[in-house]
Amino acid sequence: MTATRSTALLTDRYELTMLQATLRAGTADRHSVFELFARRLSGGRRYGVVAGIGRALDAVADFRFGEDELAWLRDADVVDAETLAWLADFRFSGSIWGYPDGEIYFPQSPVVVVEGTFAECVVLETVLLSILNHDSAIATAASRMVTAAGDRPCIEMGSRRTHEASAVAAARAAYVAGFSATSNLEAGRTHGIPTTGTSAHSFTLLHDTERAAFEAQIASLGPGTTLLVDTYDIPEAIRTAVDLAGPELGGVRLDSGDLVSLARSVRQQLDDLGATSTRITVTSDLDEHAIAALAVAPVDGYGVGTSLVTGSGVPTSGFVYKLVSRADDDGTMVSVAKKSADKVSVGGRKHAVRRLDVHGRAQAEVIGIGSAPHSDSDDRPLLVELVRDGERVHHDTLEAARARLQSALAELPAAARQLSKGDPVLDTVYEQETP
Amino acid sequence: MTATRSTALLTDRYELTMLQATLRAGTADRHSVFELFARRLSGGRRYGVVAGIGRALDAVADFRFGEDELAWLRDADVVDAETLAWLADFRFSGSIWGYPDGEIYFPQSPVVVVEGTFAECVVLETVLLSILNHDSAIATAASRMVTAAGDRPCIEMGSRRTHEASAVAAARAAYVAGFSATSNLEAGRTHGIPTTGTSAHSFTLLHDTERAAFEAQIASLGPGTTLLVDTYDIPEAIRTAVDLAGPELGGVRLDSGDLVSLARSVRQQLDDLGATSTRITVTSDLDEHAIAALAVAPVDGYGVGTSLVTGSGVPTSGFVYKLVSRADDDGTMVSVAKKSADKVSVGGRKHAVRRLDVHGRAQAEVIGIGSAPHSDSDDRPLLVELVRDGERVHHDTLEAARARLQSALAELPAAARQLSKGDPVLDTVYEQETP
Repeated sequence: MTATRSTALLTDRYELTMLQATLRAGTADRHSVFELFARRLSGGRRYGVVAGIGRALDAVADFRFGEDELAWLRDADVVDAETLAWLADFRFSGSIWGYPDGEIYFPQSPVVVVEGTFAECVVLETVLLSILNHDSAIATAASRMVTAAGDRPCIEMGSRRTHEASAVAAARAAYVAGFSATSNLEAGRTHGIPTTGTSAHSFTLLHDTERAAFEAQIASLGPGTTLLVDTYDIPEAIRTAVDLAGPELGGVRLDSGDLVSLARSVRQQLDDLGATSTRITVTSDLDEHAIAALAVAPVDGYGVGTSLVTGSGVPTSGFVYKLVSRADDDGTMVSVAKKSADKVSVGGRKHAVRRLDVHGRAQAEVIGIGSAPHSDSDDRPLLVELVRDGERVHHDTLEAARARLQSALAELPAAARQLSKGDPVLDTVYEQETP
Repeated sequence: MTATRSTALLTDRYELTMLQATLRAGTADRHSVFELFARRLSGGRRYGVVAGIGRALDAVADFRFGEDELAWLRDADVVDAETLAWLADFRFSGSIWGYPDGEIYFPQSPVVVVEGTFAECVVLETVLLSILNHDSAIATAASRMVTAAGDRPCIEMGSRRTHEASAVAAARAAYVAGFSATSNLEAGRTHGIPTTGTSAHSFTLLHDTERAAFEAQIASLGPGTTLLVDTYDIPEAIRTAVDLAGPELGGVRLDSGDLVSLARSVRQQLDDLGATSTRITVTSDLDEHAIAALAVAPVDGYGVGTSLVTGSGVPTSGFVYKLVSRADDDGTMVSVAKKSADKVSVGGRKHAVRRLDVHGRAQAEVIGIGSAPHSDSDDRPLLVELVRDGERVHHDTLEAARARLQSALAELPAAARQLSKGDPVLDTVYEQETP
């Protein structure tokens, strides 16, 4: 996973057949603006969280056609020789603006704006959508879980429930959204996310007795480790655990059963045994609703797997990538939009601010068409420059993205923290350019 | 995507902390059997389709800890020096059996059986689950779409809706399930799947007129190309298309609107214009139910995106990986299973056959515990040898997997082809070893 590799074939074939046709027609170099946005927030989400911008910028940098890629395209007869020659020299030389990782978005928010020739913008479509659609869906679900968990930490542990590479990206997205750690080691290496984990049921079953298993774990990881206590009988396991580790036992993990009542009885038993600072982590098929229901229970942390990596019912963000403006023969920029019955787009280059009142409370997502909205000083501009004339100018840390989301969430109405399905908490308002 | 790379860190941290504890306790080398199975079929699916076995075997071969992996594990203080030394020498030397790609599975089917030392089996847990959980979920959804489509081809075009690497695996899984092609170029290169695609709305919008766009596409791709006809006015687009390409126009694509009525009017118009062999492909947010509803319409092919790559509501298969048998101190194998309230497992090494009647019709999924079920000659054994003493012995083609699924589906009761939610079409029956 460390070797740099081309992302160029993570691409739908039609991007390259369009390229070939425009090269032949002489329209490939028409200056163009593409925008990546969501028509709606799926699943009754109140807001969306942007994640994947950092990965998308890496993918643009690695979007190069090397010998292997060109040879395969030639052998598979995907495009003609002229197009292959163009691809061999390809390097994105346009400019990209976007909502940075951790920013919040709403329907029609211009999350990414790509400007350059038609040819260089269109070939990026598939990989940009793949990354943003996946990562933002995970971050949006994760943010709801973090909200539900309040001050208690959430740990991402869904690697086994999703594609092995998605797992790494999901850990990154969850971290942007406020998760405290991941089980995934590659996410630790690639993204610097804290990793965590101690043992599974198989470890207990391997040993002749639960006591032998706990002894082995404590001998290896110390008394501060977290013991999995639900393989056989939980009260018996707790007695054994505290007997072996003493009151400095770090934690116990519950992975089955009625977690609210179990957590209460386990807390009581731990306290009775003097293990008052031993933490209780729960990990059984949690989603944001189960986490919210556990708020009343004496739980110290949540491990979230399946529902995190599958977006808790919304596995993809519904972003599309549309041409909104392009040059005419004489270089004049023309707004464009398709008229298809159920998928109308709004033409013209977009600009966006979050309209804030004097108290810093968000009032609306304001989108200017063709120019920036007429803005009060309180408004917060949303688009940042990511790539300027082919050079990446945005280098964000995940810590910055985490902080950005916290700030952006604090601006939103309280309804944003409701888990129920509903409308977006901000309306999206267009301001048309007055020529 | 072509360079061989280590899969070793696509792993939950607890696999390695368990390894460390067992190395220290002297239990790491206990002979063990792990099984990968689903407790149930999520989403009311009638059957599951195995996909990912070929990728899983690649991942096991690439599961090696190189200098980079070891350095990171050391720097991040994940495991101790003894464990790092063990990992440096790691190469899976056990044996693996499994249901091959394209085989059908049911609840409790032992889809993968891994046998070796505890240490070498446990470290494979995460990556095996990631691959099988993802790929089989996609293949299961895809199989329902192929069934709904009947003789009409389905094209996979969901790359943009899922993680960029998942997209490649999803194309593979869909192909196993009977899809005819994919939009994804990397899937073409990596897995040899036919790729397809011509143009998007942006291509039409780039040009001064729809006619200019169609001219450009036909000049580049020939009159046999498929033109996207719903950017502006469909009847006008059809007239232009046939005017330019003649009756040998290859196809038209509809990506919006009421597809049943649209397909009828488009077919009528094409026929009236003499383009009687021009094909109609539809591609707007299709799933298996929409495909079934289009059976009455004159449609020649389906392009499926979002619902395919997200498993049409079931994005993960729910496979777990459980220790079912392990050696005692004296080498005697002992069946093991946890007793947790809601997640009971069945201990003991499993064997499996599909019970067939004399007409080749499937009657039950029969699982023998500890030994093969007492079998009639009509029964079909389901587990094949994949890895023997560390050597991969199974090399399947995707074409073989496609044919296997067709045969396995033909054995099932007719209810398997129903799209409604329901119980698995076969019961799973255990046959206990009689000692």
